Amino acid sequence: MSYEEFTIEGRNPVLEALRAGKTIDKLFIQDGCQDGPIRSILREAKRTDCIISFVSKDRLDRMSENGKHQGVIAYAAAYDYAEVSDILKLAKTRNEDPFIIILDGIEDPHNLGAMIRTANLVGAHGVIIPKRRAAGLTATAVKASAGAVNFTPVAKVTNIARTMEELKKEGLWFVCADMSGEEMYKTNLKGPIGLVIGSEGEGVSRLVKEKCDYMARVPMRGDIDSLNASVAMGVLAYEIFRQRRKPEI
Amino acid sequence: MSYEEFTIEGRNPVLEALRAGKTIDKLFIQDGCQDGPIRSILREAKRTDCIISFVSKDRLDRMSENGKHQGVIAYAAAYDYAEVSDILKLAKTRNEDPFIIILDGIEDPHNLGAMIRTANLVGAHGVIIPKRRAAGLTATAVKASAGAVNFTPVAKVTNIARTMEELKKEGLWFVCADMSGEEMYKTNLKGPIGLVIGSEGEGVSRLVKEKCDYMARVPMRGDIDSLNASVAMGVLAYEIFRQRRKPEI
Repeated sequence: MSYEEFTIEGRNPVLEALRAGKTIDKLFIQDGCQDGPIRSILREAKRTDCIISFVSKDRLDRMSENGKHQGVIAYAAAYDYAEVSDILKLAKTRNEDPFIIILDGIEDPHNLGAMIRTANLVGAHGVIIPKRRAAGLTATAVKASAGAVNFTPVAKVTNIARTMEELKKEGLWFVCADMSGEEMYKTNLKGPIGLVIGSEGEGVSRLVKEKCDYMARVPMRGDIDSLNASVAMGVLAYEIFRQRRKPEI
Repeated sequence: MSYEEFTIEGRNPVLEALRAGKTIDKLFIQDGCQDGPIRSILREAKRTDCIISFVSKDRLDRMSENGKHQGVIAYAAAYDYAEVSDILKLAKTRNEDPFIIILDGIEDPHNLGAMIRTANLVGAHGVIIPKRRAAGLTATAVKASAGAVNFTPVAKVTNIARTMEELKKEGLWFVCADMSGEEMYKTNLKGPIGLVIGSEGEGVSRLVKEKCDYMARVPMRGDIDSLNASVAMGVLAYEIFRQRRKPEI
C-alpha cells in the first residue's frame, strides 16, 4: 500500500482507479464537460460513495500537480477504510467492552493522524469519521498516524448521528468533549463507550451532540481557551483508559 | 509584537535589530566576509547569546526571502524570552508549588507551540527550552501556542542539565517521560515539580536524564511505539494536574 498515492489526474487514470475499486474520496469534474469519457467516469463514480464536485477549469488548474488533469481530478484514499462492524468485531475478539473514537469533522490531516495514533495506544477498537467536511485517510493523515492505521480500523460514515443510533442498539453510550460538560474526572467513563470529539474550530455539531449521553470537560486553569485538538482528545482518551483499566487506581 | 517578523536580511537591518536589543536566535554570516559592517555585526552579536554560523553564499541565497541578504541573515525570535527566575516568581505570586515544563530538544515548532498551549492550560508556571538543537519561539511556534506565550513565560537556557541543578536548589524535583519508567499513575507527581520531555525522535538526552529523580511512563496498550510528542506531553502534564489538584480525586 503506497502512502504517496493521493491525487489522480486525467481521464484514463481516474477511470482505471474507479474500475479497480480504489477508494476515491472526492472527484472533481470540470464544469460543462459532457463527453463520453467524462460520462463513463461519472457512471462509475456514482456506483461508489465518492463525493462529486463540478468546478471551474481554473480551480482544476490550481489543484493539478502535473498540469494534465484533462478536466478531471480524483482524491484517492491513501488507505482503505473499514466498516463499523469491523470495529465491533475487534472488541469482541479481544473480549472487551467496545471503545470507539468518533471524530466529528476533524479537518487537519495531521490532527486526524495523531488521533488515530492515540486511539491505537489507548486500546480503542476503532475510529469513525464522517464522509463530508472532514479530513480523510490522506497520505498526510496516514503518515501522522505513525503506522496506527495498520492496526486500528477507521470507518467512514455518511451520517455520524445515525451511526451513533445504531451503536446505541449495540449497548454503547456516548460522551462528547464539551466545555460546558462535567469535569472528566467526575464523569463515569466505563463500559461500552464512544468518545465524540468535535472539529477544531466548531466543536461537536448540534445533531451529534443531541445523541450524546454525557458531556465531559477537560479541566483547564490557564488563560487561553482551548487545547490543541489532538492533545484534548489524548487527555480525554487517557482518562477513559484510566477508568477502564483493572485493577482500578 | 508582530508574529511575522522572523527573518532579518541585510547588513543594516541586522545591525539595527541587534542594537535595538531584539532577540536574535541565529545569525548566518557569509564565509570570508570580513569588512567593517560585518565586523560590527559580529561585535554586537557576541554581546548577546545568539548562535553565529559561517555559511556559504549559496546557502544564504537559498535561505533568503528577498534576495538582499548582503552576506548576513538573522533569525529573530518572534517573541521575547523570559528568565527562569520569572517562572519561579510566577509560582510564588500564585502561592503554588512550582510546576515547570522542560522541553529537551523539541524540533517541530508546531509541537513546541502546542506544548506551551498545554503548559498554560494545565497551570504550569513556565516552559524551559534549550538554546541549541531545538525550535525556538518562531512565528510558527507562537501561532501554534494559540496565545499561550502571552501568559506562560518561556525561558531559553544554554545548558538544561545545569539549569535543573539550579532548580533543585529551589526545591524542585524532576520527572522525565521515559518508556522504561514507572507507570505515571503509580508515580507520585506532587510538590514542586519539573516535567522533562525529550525530543520527538531521540527522547531525553543522557545528561538530562541523569539529573531526573524519577522516570514516568504513559501506559500504552496498542500496537505502535509512541504517541505524538505533544499528545504524550499533554497526557503526562494532565496526570500531574490530576495529582496536584485539591481536593484530591
